[in-house]
Amino acid sequence: MFVLGIDPGLSRCGYGVVETNGRRQRAVAAGVVRTQRELPVPQRLAELQAEMRLLIDEYSPKAVAVERVLFQTNVSTAMGVGQASGIVMAEAIRAGCEVTEYSPNEIKLAVAGDGSADKGQMETMVRMLLDIKKPLKPVDAADALGVALCHIARYGVPAGVGR
Amino acid sequence: MFVLGIDPGLSRCGYGVVETNGRRQRAVAAGVVRTQRELPVPQRLAELQAEMRLLIDEYSPKAVAVERVLFQTNVSTAMGVGQASGIVMAEAIRAGCEVTEYSPNEIKLAVAGDGSADKGQMETMVRMLLDIKKPLKPVDAADALGVALCHIARYGVPAGVGR
Repeated sequence: MFVLGIDPGLSRCGYGVVETNGRRQRAVAAGVVRTQRELPVPQRLAELQAEMRLLIDEYSPKAVAVERVLFQTNVSTAMGVGQASGIVMAEAIRAGCEVTEYSPNEIKLAVAGDGSADKGQMETMVRMLLDIKKPLKPVDAADALGVALCHIARYGVPAGVGR
Repeated sequence: MFVLGIDPGLSRCGYGVVETNGRRQRAVAAGVVRTQRELPVPQRLAELQAEMRLLIDEYSPKAVAVERVLFQTNVSTAMGVGQASGIVMAEAIRAGCEVTEYSPNEIKLAVAGDGSADKGQMETMVRMLLDIKKPLKPVDAADALGVALCHIARYGVPAGVGR
């Protein structure tokens, strides 16, 4: 099954598609949906919605995992992140996907075994878990793969195989 | 033409449809879309998206005016408001509407002539401008009509007629 991980944002919305059979994972796609800061916010949100729809149509993920917005971290971008996450989650439900939100702490704990792992440690662990040799860029794409891996660690492994 | 005003929220999303010919305004519809707090947020967002789509399909507004979220006011509900506003704006653009955001201050100034008008003053002015005799309930619906009236005051009046 495919899991789509999302690192939501209005200027940059990271996505990562991971395939799992319950034992092994592989990266299928990863990238960033960008919208132009010069455009009005409603237009940017509509573009993001259309891009998300294409992404979900293309990969038909069973589950969509979304990083939960924490307002404390950056108030100036929090609004766009909130709007983007809302659009992503509504589109995913509309398409029949299971949708789950994870906090940054949960994602770090599930992927790197450390809720306070930094970006570099996370990228290293994401590459290790997905057997990716080259550095993962941009960072939003790596983050999004991490969100998908978090979901798989939490739900994607059959009982008895362990986490 | 019809203008749809939105007071965005996840638990309660106020809407108000106002018809204007450039000189006179009348209320066509007003109400609140509610989603249940017990349901997971993604489901609630998808419900709101579906309801917004029905509303826009039913009234075919030329313009959609949305109250802008201010984070300072209430951090605990700001996330849901942000997600809801994102969904509303993306749906409206998708349907070909003009979409404009107004701050609470702009709305109060346009409707009541006072950027610090309270809820009671706003409700009174909304009723006066729309010639509504009975008290407007719930408050979210009155607020949403105010957002639509703000847009009309800003853009809906032909040059020369004044504001």
